Amino acid sequence: MTQEIFPSWPDVAAQLVNVAAGRTAADTIIKGGKWVNVHTREILPDHDIAIAAGRIAFVGPNASHCRGSDTQIIEAKGRYMIPGLCDAHMHIESGMLTPAEFARAVIPHGTTSMFTDPHEIANVLGLEGVRMMHDEALMQPVNIFTQMPSCAPSAPGMETTGFEISAEDVAEAMQWPGIIGLGEMMNFPGVSNADPQMLAEIAATQRAGKTVGGHYASPDLGPAFAAYVAGGPADDHEGTCEADAIARMRQGMRSMIRLGSAWYDVETQITAITEKGLDPRNMILCTDDSHSGTLVNDGHMNRVVRHAIECGCDPVVALQMATINTATHFGLERDIGSLTPGRRADVVLTSDLKTLPIETVIARGQIVAEAGECLVDCPHYAWPQAARKTVNMAKDLTGADFRIDAPKGANAVTANVIGVVENQAPTRALKFELPVTDGQVQSTGEVCQIALVERHRATGGVVNAFVSGFGYEGQMAMASTVAHDSHHMIVVGTDPEQMALAANRLREVGGGITIFRDGVELALVELPIAGLMSDSPATEVAAKAEGMMQAMRDCGCTLNNAYMQHSLLALVVIPELRISDLGLVDVRSFEFIPVLEPHS
Amino acid sequence: MTQEIFPSWPDVAAQLVNVAAGRTAADTIIKGGKWVNVHTREILPDHDIAIAAGRIAFVGPNASHCRGSDTQIIEAKGRYMIPGLCDAHMHIESGMLTPAEFARAVIPHGTTSMFTDPHEIANVLGLEGVRMMHDEALMQPVNIFTQMPSCAPSAPGMETTGFEISAEDVAEAMQWPGIIGLGEMMNFPGVSNADPQMLAEIAATQRAGKTVGGHYASPDLGPAFAAYVAGGPADDHEGTCEADAIARMRQGMRSMIRLGSAWYDVETQITAITEKGLDPRNMILCTDDSHSGTLVNDGHMNRVVRHAIECGCDPVVALQMATINTATHFGLERDIGSLTPGRRADVVLTSDLKTLPIETVIARGQIVAEAGECLVDCPHYAWPQAARKTVNMAKDLTGADFRIDAPKGANAVTANVIGVVENQAPTRALKFELPVTDGQVQSTGEVCQIALVERHRATGGVVNAFVSGFGYEGQMAMASTVAHDSHHMIVVGTDPEQMALAANRLREVGGGITIFRDGVELALVELPIAGLMSDSPATEVAAKAEGMMQAMRDCGCTLNNAYMQHSLLALVVIPELRISDLGLVDVRSFEFIPVLEPHS
Repeated sequence: MTQEIFPSWPDVAAQLVNVAAGRTAADTIIKGGKWVNVHTREILPDHDIAIAAGRIAFVGPNASHCRGSDTQIIEAKGRYMIPGLCDAHMHIESGMLTPAEFARAVIPHGTTSMFTDPHEIANVLGLEGVRMMHDEALMQPVNIFTQMPSCAPSAPGMETTGFEISAEDVAEAMQWPGIIGLGEMMNFPGVSNADPQMLAEIAATQRAGKTVGGHYASPDLGPAFAAYVAGGPADDHEGTCEADAIARMRQGMRSMIRLGSAWYDVETQITAITEKGLDPRNMILCTDDSHSGTLVNDGHMNRVVRHAIECGCDPVVALQMATINTATHFGLERDIGSLTPGRRADVVLTSDLKTLPIETVIARGQIVAEAGECLVDCPHYAWPQAARKTVNMAKDLTGADFRIDAPKGANAVTANVIGVVENQAPTRALKFELPVTDGQVQSTGEVCQIALVERHRATGGVVNAFVSGFGYEGQMAMASTVAHDSHHMIVVGTDPEQMALAANRLREVGGGITIFRDGVELALVELPIAGLMSDSPATEVAAKAEGMMQAMRDCGCTLNNAYMQHSLLALVVIPELRISDLGLVDVRSFEFIPVLEPHS
Repeated sequence: MTQEIFPSWPDVAAQLVNVAAGRTAADTIIKGGKWVNVHTREILPDHDIAIAAGRIAFVGPNASHCRGSDTQIIEAKGRYMIPGLCDAHMHIESGMLTPAEFARAVIPHGTTSMFTDPHEIANVLGLEGVRMMHDEALMQPVNIFTQMPSCAPSAPGMETTGFEISAEDVAEAMQWPGIIGLGEMMNFPGVSNADPQMLAEIAATQRAGKTVGGHYASPDLGPAFAAYVAGGPADDHEGTCEADAIARMRQGMRSMIRLGSAWYDVETQITAITEKGLDPRNMILCTDDSHSGTLVNDGHMNRVVRHAIECGCDPVVALQMATINTATHFGLERDIGSLTPGRRADVVLTSDLKTLPIETVIARGQIVAEAGECLVDCPHYAWPQAARKTVNMAKDLTGADFRIDAPKGANAVTANVIGVVENQAPTRALKFELPVTDGQVQSTGEVCQIALVERHRATGGVVNAFVSGFGYEGQMAMASTVAHDSHHMIVVGTDPEQMALAANRLREVGGGITIFRDGVELALVELPIAGLMSDSPATEVAAKAEGMMQAMRDCGCTLNNAYMQHSLLALVVIPELRISDLGLVDVRSFEFIPVLEPHS
């Protein structure tokens, strides 16, 4: 257990006071920048910032009284000095990177504070996994706050996770130094129905004085929404339209609006501010999920702020939504989120507030990135074997494990098929007539097989079913241990033998994503940590992920975000049809249904 | 020790959820009002509020699904529904009333939350006195949060208080249920100089996750101010001009602007919002000090909000400054400060947002006032004898105790005289030539005597000196045990015999204010609790206080706020000349000076 806590304001107050008064020299002075003041919503030219012990000691037109012979001078040269950007809600695992490598990827983009919900690892490794993420987070040179995952399993009774999170786990985690609140409470029907466990988790968080994250993924703004609000979640990032944002803010929640790799919810909601003129203090920007490719090629919170500005938001208001609004929401407004005395000296220098080039990034008073390059060490946690050996299969599988037998004597069958819909998270519950050969139901060009391979308890369980929409051709299979939310292994393929090869390969490498065609591995992304994350740099992971997506295309798949579709096929909280380790789930009714319709 | 804590949101969440969902009936529904939404800064007509367990369960256009046969209906009839008003910083003792009677006086004015600093009683009774105030506060039907006093004595070494407050006391108090933070840190030179005790008190508060109140009473916005900010205070209510307000907000403090009985700091500072257009979220309204007469005749926070609107502030912005801004500042935005689910059901109904008539006041879901009349019980704490017997004088005084002897043989002397300046808190250090009769220095028409009578430890100490500016005529004396900040007894008079009568009378009644002329008592305000407060109703206390002020006028005093001037003459932190139990203090140099200049 690592406990590297950055010294608090009271720990260093005497030093800050003495620097501000001019009795002690500052460690560093940033000279001559435009002070972007997110408290007053002003831009004040020609200001200096004096820093000591990693915190801001003084901000004013002239910090020369804080300067000593050893004081490092950073020349702002008239550039804007903005607070380090905050990502108010995100999952590190979505980048397929460990916290350290995620930090290394986003620091050059100006992100200095992240509020992260390690929901995925919680499903694989439970409270211990959360603790590992939490501990690596605290080792970083930027601020990574952990939200305790609230919902593992997300659909109790419909799936089996590696571990479960209890209300007692939540209460325990609230005592950890890096825990900032409860991760998104996605069991929104549970809250609306006053489910005792969900309310107990919320209560444990509120009693600890921490922030309850919300997740209300429904367009219904009637009594079900009202009941969810009354249950206590303090924010929500699942809104998709202006009415969603307005409803949440009016009800005293903070509306988090997200631009993730595949989420585009800023443009449709920021009009609550830009057009309806509501008080912007309760709107917050976040990413939720960023793939490594996005981090390498496009950016992180800088991309979100820039996008908000492109959507017509005043730049300083957009910055408030990524700094002080976030800090206030989490009770941290005297620690981060503005460039004022006492706060951590997290500063970004940029020469243009609209295009927001991230030129220099300072975190806790140290220059951590310059011109897109990370200049600081992001230490790795010593991940134990338990975290590196999470693909627990008793033995290698064979093609026979993926056979779907037809009822005796049938020449054709009617199958319930998961219908993937391009650009949508929900699937369709379809029915297809499928041919039978040698007693075995066959894939067609349109419909191929899907299997959920149990990997937490080595039960040997394989649930077979069918999926349509990928467009795969030839003899191929793709397997992934990123399989939301319980993260068993999803294998999709046109051929049982290839499916077995892919599954066994992930067993061999300890998790990740692989694609086989005709017995040859086309691509591999190793994700050795919990089968979810790599501790390699983002550039490497992004390159491998790109290779994996190219291999999907090579196999005939032309879907947008095809990999994401693959990884969500076991997400038994989103309609209509999903697969879990317990069977084929009709999410509309939360019932298991047979893969093959009864022979009529 | 009383611990009547109002149930928290998590205590009653299941009930709130069930009401919002329509499964359980609300206790009360406020029907058909204009929802003043301080989160979004909107006014939304035709809304209902459903209440259960004293908290808001639902707000929407139609709460009929929350209605049961026993649900009480309050018809808003199209009136505005605003959150109960919050006073962000105030001293209950300034009303010369106990917390219960103060609450009873302000509830009809729409105040439902107060952040109170029992600094005065702390000087008399120390931590125990604070605890008594805290306990009575928690018994009330409205929310009275206690700020732990930070500075008793306010001028260490310059005065002797009844008790002292240590950093350990502060740390202990932070564990009490009703403590919301640290009271105004008025030792601003101490903070700017990194005084270890002051920083320890601030640290104890910050580490408890609570709010550090500030008090920076200087126009110097240079390094001394910067050093104070770096020390940690999170707000300040001592600003008097626009530049003060702007400087505080820019530096990440909240600017509290006050309209007290004798403070007029709103009009001069609110222009930071109304004219300069700064983000208003960091400006907060408060009263600081309200006399009972103000409460009876003029109002409380409703008076402040109304005044802010008269100064040109948008009414909803002004209401934000008295509701959600305050709640956010103290980390209570999910408990009070807005009309949204989960919050305490503190609601005011008013038919006009500009003139703000307070028609109906609802606190914790109960109607507590209607048309200016308090309809609820405000329970009294069982004040112990220790709190009721605080005028500790060993014996009655005589005229001889107030004699000021001249050096032997002198016919006249030069005296250092405290010069009261009308409408100003600072005094002047004056010198007067005074006549000597029978070896005793004499008052003149312009200069009379002042004495500081020790009353905490029965030392028998009487410090005699001179004061000018009251204009008293004839043979009179006025005595008060309200004598900021250490609250010994200040006696001002033209005649030693009358001074002895007045002092002895307060000894007899256990504290308060009295005026004698020619051996007859003209007026008496009994303040039996700590010599500072009455547990009689505000109307009675206000009437007696008015009688006392009339008696001052009858004795020839024409000063504005003459009583306040009297009570501040021992406030040894405001220049230039003051009196303490240790002598005559030149506050410019923090040195004791002689009453009579050495004979030359």
